[in-house]
Amino acid sequence: MDQPVPATDADGNPKTEHVVVEEPLQITLDGHPISVVMRTPGHDEDLVRGFLITEGILPSLNAIRRIDLESKANHALVFLSDDIKVDLGQLTRHVFSASSCGICGKASIDAIISGFPPLEDPPRFPKEALLAAPDILRTAQATFDTTGGLHAAALFDTTGKMLAVREDIGRHNAVDKLIGHALSNNIDPATAFLLVSGRVSFEIMQKSLAARIPLVAAISAPSSLAIDFATKAKQTLVAFLRPPKFNVYAGAPWRRSL
Amino acid sequence: MDQPVPATDADGNPKTEHVVVEEPLQITLDGHPISVVMRTPGHDEDLVRGFLITEGILPSLNAIRRIDLESKANHALVFLSDDIKVDLGQLTRHVFSASSCGICGKASIDAIISGFPPLEDPPRFPKEALLAAPDILRTAQATFDTTGGLHAAALFDTTGKMLAVREDIGRHNAVDKLIGHALSNNIDPATAFLLVSGRVSFEIMQKSLAARIPLVAAISAPSSLAIDFATKAKQTLVAFLRPPKFNVYAGAPWRRSL
Repeated sequence: MDQPVPATDADGNPKTEHVVVEEPLQITLDGHPISVVMRTPGHDEDLVRGFLITEGILPSLNAIRRIDLESKANHALVFLSDDIKVDLGQLTRHVFSASSCGICGKASIDAIISGFPPLEDPPRFPKEALLAAPDILRTAQATFDTTGGLHAAALFDTTGKMLAVREDIGRHNAVDKLIGHALSNNIDPATAFLLVSGRVSFEIMQKSLAARIPLVAAISAPSSLAIDFATKAKQTLVAFLRPPKFNVYAGAPWRRSL
Repeated sequence: MDQPVPATDADGNPKTEHVVVEEPLQITLDGHPISVVMRTPGHDEDLVRGFLITEGILPSLNAIRRIDLESKANHALVFLSDDIKVDLGQLTRHVFSASSCGICGKASIDAIISGFPPLEDPPRFPKEALLAAPDILRTAQATFDTTGGLHAAALFDTTGKMLAVREDIGRHNAVDKLIGHALSNNIDPATAFLLVSGRVSFEIMQKSLAARIPLVAAISAPSSLAIDFATKAKQTLVAFLRPPKFNVYAGAPWRRSL
């Protein structure tokens, strides 16, 4: 989602530029505010669903009775099913910010890696599927992003077919939108691989594990903690995916062929 | 700060790659945990100082009596001066995460823009200083970043001289480290401009306004909210700074010459 804005060039000549829209979204759970996310409007319901799952706040989407995005601008009012109890006190741990990261809300640093169980016997993918993915993502992105300000995340199946793609000003939001969409549309992330347009840090791995994604690939660099996380979670982590090259930092090997 | 890790290439050949280190840092204020930040270790004291100022938690660095980084790994224990009272209840608003953004911890979305007063009569800069800055930043970055995983932020004076540069896996952390360093080393951000290696979103503008920085320039794209913020704060916002070109989205005009 972009927006035309007036700008001037280096010589002071006026022109119109398109910039990515950034707006806050406050998420409340049965009336309790739990987070404010800076996001690009659009696919907000996907974002909320994905966020609640990948941050470990809800065990499954069945816990959600209704999401009201209409009553208040930039507010997502989430109403839980009657039989669901969420310990909101547990969610609020005098931790209120995490620049570029959402580990806050987890009780302790020790608990981060163990928050979600590791994968067991994850599926393998053919290298060809992986190598074809960046071009497919770029083609999809070119359609949407005229601003240079969006991050993209996409899921691909074992044959290399793109199942879904989402974009957002925030890397984590793009992944949350993607996962929220997948989980509510019969796309099984546990049999797919994730490609992100930028870097891969710890939190992208956390979110992907929460969705049981067995392989995460990034066009750009991984962090040390992303590698540690992938290793412990038994996920495959590929980065600097720039065909015909890429680096494998954890997991693999590959399936023989498509 | 980087770390060698074992990896394999696309053909399965083993090699050693250098990746950026990502580690959590828990910040406590007089014993109360207030945030966990995923950061690249190094310049932690700068990061903590900058964070506490740019998030509006402390009015000035005089409020800090001591920062203990030694007693507990990945913990910054901040001790406040005796005469300083911080309302910790106010800081904790059942808001515990903000993917790629730190607006959480502010009472309401309405309050974000008005959290810090706008600039009055900000200094002007010569265009030449701005156009020279990306090369200077890149040269400085090449020295540190062998991983492709770091964001950089630097302050430049009105003659285009780089005053300080900081890098981090998190964009916001790089800015916090830079501001924390400047404020504790007699570098006045109010007379300098900030250059960031990537995109500029709302929160970068918020942090720069907290430090009274009059001009923010980004190599990459701005967001809609960053532009709105700069306009209201009377800051100059330059993006897509790719000499000889750039776009001005708010503020300017320029000083005549160096």
